[in-house]
Amino acid sequence: MYRVNEDYLKLPGSYLFSTIGKKSRAFKEAHPEADVISLGIGDVTQPLVPAIIKALHAAVDDMSRAETFHGYSPDLGYSWLRETIAKNDYEDRGCSISPDEIFISDGAKSDSGNIQEIFSRDSRIAVCDPVYPVYVDSNVMAGRCGTYDPKTERWSDVIYMPCVAENNFTPELPKEEPDIIYLCYPNNPTGASITKERLSEWVDYANRIGAVIIYDAAYEAYISAPDVPHSIYECEGARSCAIEIRSFSKNAGFTGTRLGFTVVPKDLERGGVKLHSLWARRHGTKFNGAPYIVQKAAMAVYSEEGKKELKEQVGYYKRNCRVIMDALKESGYEVYGGVDAPYIWMKTPDQMTSWEFFDRLLEKAHVVGTPGSGFGPSGEHYFRLTAFGTYENTKEAVRRIQRM
Amino acid sequence: MYRVNEDYLKLPGSYLFSTIGKKSRAFKEAHPEADVISLGIGDVTQPLVPAIIKALHAAVDDMSRAETFHGYSPDLGYSWLRETIAKNDYEDRGCSISPDEIFISDGAKSDSGNIQEIFSRDSRIAVCDPVYPVYVDSNVMAGRCGTYDPKTERWSDVIYMPCVAENNFTPELPKEEPDIIYLCYPNNPTGASITKERLSEWVDYANRIGAVIIYDAAYEAYISAPDVPHSIYECEGARSCAIEIRSFSKNAGFTGTRLGFTVVPKDLERGGVKLHSLWARRHGTKFNGAPYIVQKAAMAVYSEEGKKELKEQVGYYKRNCRVIMDALKESGYEVYGGVDAPYIWMKTPDQMTSWEFFDRLLEKAHVVGTPGSGFGPSGEHYFRLTAFGTYENTKEAVRRIQRM
Repeated sequence: MYRVNEDYLKLPGSYLFSTIGKKSRAFKEAHPEADVISLGIGDVTQPLVPAIIKALHAAVDDMSRAETFHGYSPDLGYSWLRETIAKNDYEDRGCSISPDEIFISDGAKSDSGNIQEIFSRDSRIAVCDPVYPVYVDSNVMAGRCGTYDPKTERWSDVIYMPCVAENNFTPELPKEEPDIIYLCYPNNPTGASITKERLSEWVDYANRIGAVIIYDAAYEAYISAPDVPHSIYECEGARSCAIEIRSFSKNAGFTGTRLGFTVVPKDLERGGVKLHSLWARRHGTKFNGAPYIVQKAAMAVYSEEGKKELKEQVGYYKRNCRVIMDALKESGYEVYGGVDAPYIWMKTPDQMTSWEFFDRLLEKAHVVGTPGSGFGPSGEHYFRLTAFGTYENTKEAVRRIQRM
Repeated sequence: MYRVNEDYLKLPGSYLFSTIGKKSRAFKEAHPEADVISLGIGDVTQPLVPAIIKALHAAVDDMSRAETFHGYSPDLGYSWLRETIAKNDYEDRGCSISPDEIFISDGAKSDSGNIQEIFSRDSRIAVCDPVYPVYVDSNVMAGRCGTYDPKTERWSDVIYMPCVAENNFTPELPKEEPDIIYLCYPNNPTGASITKERLSEWVDYANRIGAVIIYDAAYEAYISAPDVPHSIYECEGARSCAIEIRSFSKNAGFTGTRLGFTVVPKDLERGGVKLHSLWARRHGTKFNGAPYIVQKAAMAVYSEEGKKELKEQVGYYKRNCRVIMDALKESGYEVYGGVDAPYIWMKTPDQMTSWEFFDRLLEKAHVVGTPGSGFGPSGEHYFRLTAFGTYENTKEAVRRIQRM
């Protein structure tokens, strides 16, 4: 008689985006004339750039002829793509990462969810609060988080590291020692970035206590500041303590095209076992490679033409950031993020809760955003806006917010 | 101090295909003039058909314009694709499966590897022997299989069901009661199929003991016989005991394009918990949807044009089957499978071991196949040939085998 994985049952429902959807729909029904603008979701709106479209068409044509048809991809990805990534994302930034330390996947969400699997079940995880929910939920599903207290909204066995205005949204080193530390910079949801100096402290700390850092760098393309590292491997010592997860979703608009990669340096070793070989085993057993045509599209991301076009596309979203930041500041709001990241994190006015402000914004400005409390208790009294809308919608949304 | 998942370390190295590769390379180096033909791998060689190519190009064009650009796909797949599958693969075969019981994924390998996650850790699995290695390996990695005995090549906590010529390669109901039963029909590696009558016995058995059947139907497009079911849901009662995994790899050549789906009927319930909601939770947490362009390509699989072209393509590989079967029989070999499946399973001659026959075939005929023992101890003295080569190579290969 089979039984279900009881750890799954511990997960409280994830109501954030469904509640947002429900409230928005109810409002639209009550006000069919209102033109509601969403600055809530983290999904891009600009089409794939011409260099990528060209590469996709060419790759599709390859698939139409026996001589150039491609069957199963190597589990770990095509070597031409891994070499290109190693050169552009690492060598060119002074990081020593070899192509065979790069694992191509169908996206950063899969990798962030699956990476916990290669660690022992009794590992203790540390996460920022607020946080991208996948880090915690995937560990809950693996039986690693203890019990959930709905009052504190916290799991008994998770180490939470509050990230608030007072600490510039970068956590303090935790008092209890974690085994696995999740860091995401530039950060979702707070839009904060971390300097090389501060990140190096984390690398030193992880090496000292024998922890591993899962570094989610999905938003690195939005970095402007010179002292903000694009990769954790810019920090000395990171090769022996850090796994880095990257995405093509936000730098190249691949949210619906799907591609990402994870770097597992061969220096990561415990008891004579390389994490690299464990992750390779997972890839080899439960994954069958990313589509050839999508890997070819990723090559165009690194072409001269592609780089130029994508710089413009990222620039488009960064301009949205500035539009939002400037307008909110002008109106007297306390705003954070939005410089090295596509997310603007604002303090709600008048001590409103995140959901109270959500309702007010929807009613008065017909704008949908994301309540900060949805990302964790330390997100309460904060609110997230994203820069992924169109320029016109973004302009109109802030105009309305300024008037409300 | 982090520790690794010790269950990963229990996995013995998977040397089957790497040993085949090594031996083939060594032979080619020693005989540079030899034209070695591989009938070993399960990868397709024919290009994507025109209807699919057309759909891919159109979908790429959609991604180039803001009005038709697609970001994140729904976790579970686009409703147009799920509805099309429900209609074509189920309703048209008299099976009652609704679109929202279908989960689109990046392929059957991911799904077969991940599905075990929704069951309790102490679940007892039953597998055929020989077997596709992913079923067992993914359970080993989850700590579900006990210890490995290299002498018997068996895990202490796994129930093995030998499939040999004597039982027509369909297993007997096991003496010990399993919780999770993996069945793959048409079968990889044996090429055997199962009749509706025999499969119904399994459905009844699973319902009786409260087990779940994971039914891998990746090769259903190769079925010719009228009494062989294309889906387990053709059997009465399957909705309450079976999960079905499907692939686009072998019916449409998607090995390098990546798409599959899994059906979890809402009747599957234990202790008030629907497996459907657990699998939905896994999808929602650790997966971010399959690429829009690939889901569009799958739609072409079900178009009139696509169906016609794919029938021809599958027919091409089925002709290879017949070429191999006929030639081997003519030469006095004992052969199985090859009718409802793209795999031919032959008994090695003269009591040779699978590897001895591999060496002989390579040396005498310059043909590479797959030793049956690589799929489990009951595969010893068997050998697998696949129909996925080109017609010309397949003809030439069997000509050489006949002469050796």
